Amino acid sequence: MRIDALQYCNYSEKIFRQWREAHLDAVHVTIAYHENFREMVANLEAWNRHFERFPELIFKGTTAADVELANASGKTAVFFGFQNPSPIEDDIGLVEIVHQLGVRFMQLTYNNQSLLASGCYEPVDAGISRMGKEVIAEMNRVGLVVDMSHSGDRSTIEAAEFSKRPIVITHANPYEWAPALRNKRDEVLRAVFQSGGMIGFSLYPHHLRDKSECTLAGFCQMVADTVSKYGVEHIGIGSDLCQDQPDSVVEWMRVGRWTKQIDYGEGSKSVPGFPPQPDWFADSRGFNYLQTGLADVGFSETEIELILGGNWHRFFKQNFAPLVG
Amino acid sequence: MRIDALQYCNYSEKIFRQWREAHLDAVHVTIAYHENFREMVANLEAWNRHFERFPELIFKGTTAADVELANASGKTAVFFGFQNPSPIEDDIGLVEIVHQLGVRFMQLTYNNQSLLASGCYEPVDAGISRMGKEVIAEMNRVGLVVDMSHSGDRSTIEAAEFSKRPIVITHANPYEWAPALRNKRDEVLRAVFQSGGMIGFSLYPHHLRDKSECTLAGFCQMVADTVSKYGVEHIGIGSDLCQDQPDSVVEWMRVGRWTKQIDYGEGSKSVPGFPPQPDWFADSRGFNYLQTGLADVGFSETEIELILGGNWHRFFKQNFAPLVG
Repeated sequence: MRIDALQYCNYSEKIFRQWREAHLDAVHVTIAYHENFREMVANLEAWNRHFERFPELIFKGTTAADVELANASGKTAVFFGFQNPSPIEDDIGLVEIVHQLGVRFMQLTYNNQSLLASGCYEPVDAGISRMGKEVIAEMNRVGLVVDMSHSGDRSTIEAAEFSKRPIVITHANPYEWAPALRNKRDEVLRAVFQSGGMIGFSLYPHHLRDKSECTLAGFCQMVADTVSKYGVEHIGIGSDLCQDQPDSVVEWMRVGRWTKQIDYGEGSKSVPGFPPQPDWFADSRGFNYLQTGLADVGFSETEIELILGGNWHRFFKQNFAPLVG
Repeated sequence: MRIDALQYCNYSEKIFRQWREAHLDAVHVTIAYHENFREMVANLEAWNRHFERFPELIFKGTTAADVELANASGKTAVFFGFQNPSPIEDDIGLVEIVHQLGVRFMQLTYNNQSLLASGCYEPVDAGISRMGKEVIAEMNRVGLVVDMSHSGDRSTIEAAEFSKRPIVITHANPYEWAPALRNKRDEVLRAVFQSGGMIGFSLYPHHLRDKSECTLAGFCQMVADTVSKYGVEHIGIGSDLCQDQPDSVVEWMRVGRWTKQIDYGEGSKSVPGFPPQPDWFADSRGFNYLQTGLADVGFSETEIELILGGNWHRFFKQNFAPLVG
């Protein structure tokens, strides 16, 4: 099984074909940054049109069994997630509705404070809000996974403790390897893993040591070091690939409608756009390089299988269905 | 199998328990009259809360297999439908979205002209509109059933001819038995049945001969006469039961937001509210009287089984899934 636990590309037949060349059985795609419910539904509609147009390449995935079906049929199952809770607006009833629409991951915050928690760019992180606790409990009940990739440390640790089911960081790297605001400190990773959760390692240059110049060997050594420290079972890939997107999209991601100013997020005034990808991960076919790179740093076939998808597959199996009883 | 192909009650545990006493395996409930998409979703949320509160009585139904499951487990499967296309707004992509949310019937109009067709209260019925044809084709593709209960004759006949899958009238009676504007003339019924479709006979007093005074024997004789004329396979029940609703609800049904005046619809200024039900169909348990009444007019056990649910069950099996290929 190969699974990419986060992408946000400008999707096209070209990219779907690259998924097949990368042997990706499943991809978790972002369908909302700042969209309200109705706007997010319009994004679902666009995905329905992709599924209608390219049935030989992709289909909508909602269960771990869909990953297996994809693997058996040579297609890619597409799983939906939000990077922000904006699509549920102020309405806890929408948690179950979005799960019924097939959404499987929701970040409680995107950089900023939300109704539920605080983002990693806020100067003060007050932790999980009153509504945040209610929403986590409802997410647990229906099988919508709490993703804290863009949240603050306190919010993440509190979410891991409060949630009755594992929480995840779909896309980030260890802070000690690359000290970016979005990367995760030891205590955060421990809290996530203690909940039974996972991290998907990111290939987004702002999360990498040496950014666009990061080497395959260096990345794979980071994977090896993290596995030594925490165990292989918590580790996967969430590439954060933003392929073929115009820079207007990174501006939407960072700015949404919350400010009239430009916020550069992980970029800067001099480098405001999407950074260039490392040449060994220009698109999803980088998974084929990862296979080799992970072997070169000493991982066994079995471990590589777990890291490139097996662990996420197990996680999907345990966390996408409603709690019974 | 017992199926009621249309109700719009003020739902409560009491009513769900009456469903069980009526041995109803499935009920098609209206979840929208004039609601836009987001408002309709709020109604879905309210149903999700019913399902969460009363799992021993009801569950959400989306397939014919759910009717069988309900029958086997002593519960009632609840199927969703719209009396108006307002929830899809002006957006054909919402047809598949509402099907994914579990909706299985949509009326193309509710009394008035819509974006898709014309209603039975309009002085001129121009038939199916340009968007109407597109939406019917999309409904056919995804498995959302065209319901023309409140449509004009021309629109209904054109829909029956244009649709590639059977269309239905979930709740009405033959015009020749009770000449109400909402009841259906011979040519309309023939067009619906020729499409492979069904009618659900209504117990709403405005659709009955002698209204609230209609007798069980008179109603069952109408069923017998219609079956003699058109065959048993097209006949079911769609009671149009509006139990425990305040009169403000019938006003919402009739007036929505389309006029600042009061429109009395099938009522009148002197009798503006919900009319009293016939005493033998005060609630869903009237199905038990229908069983006896249909036997008394000479139907066999097999025919009664088909009329009270078997025909709708077969129809559900053939019409709720997406077209393949």
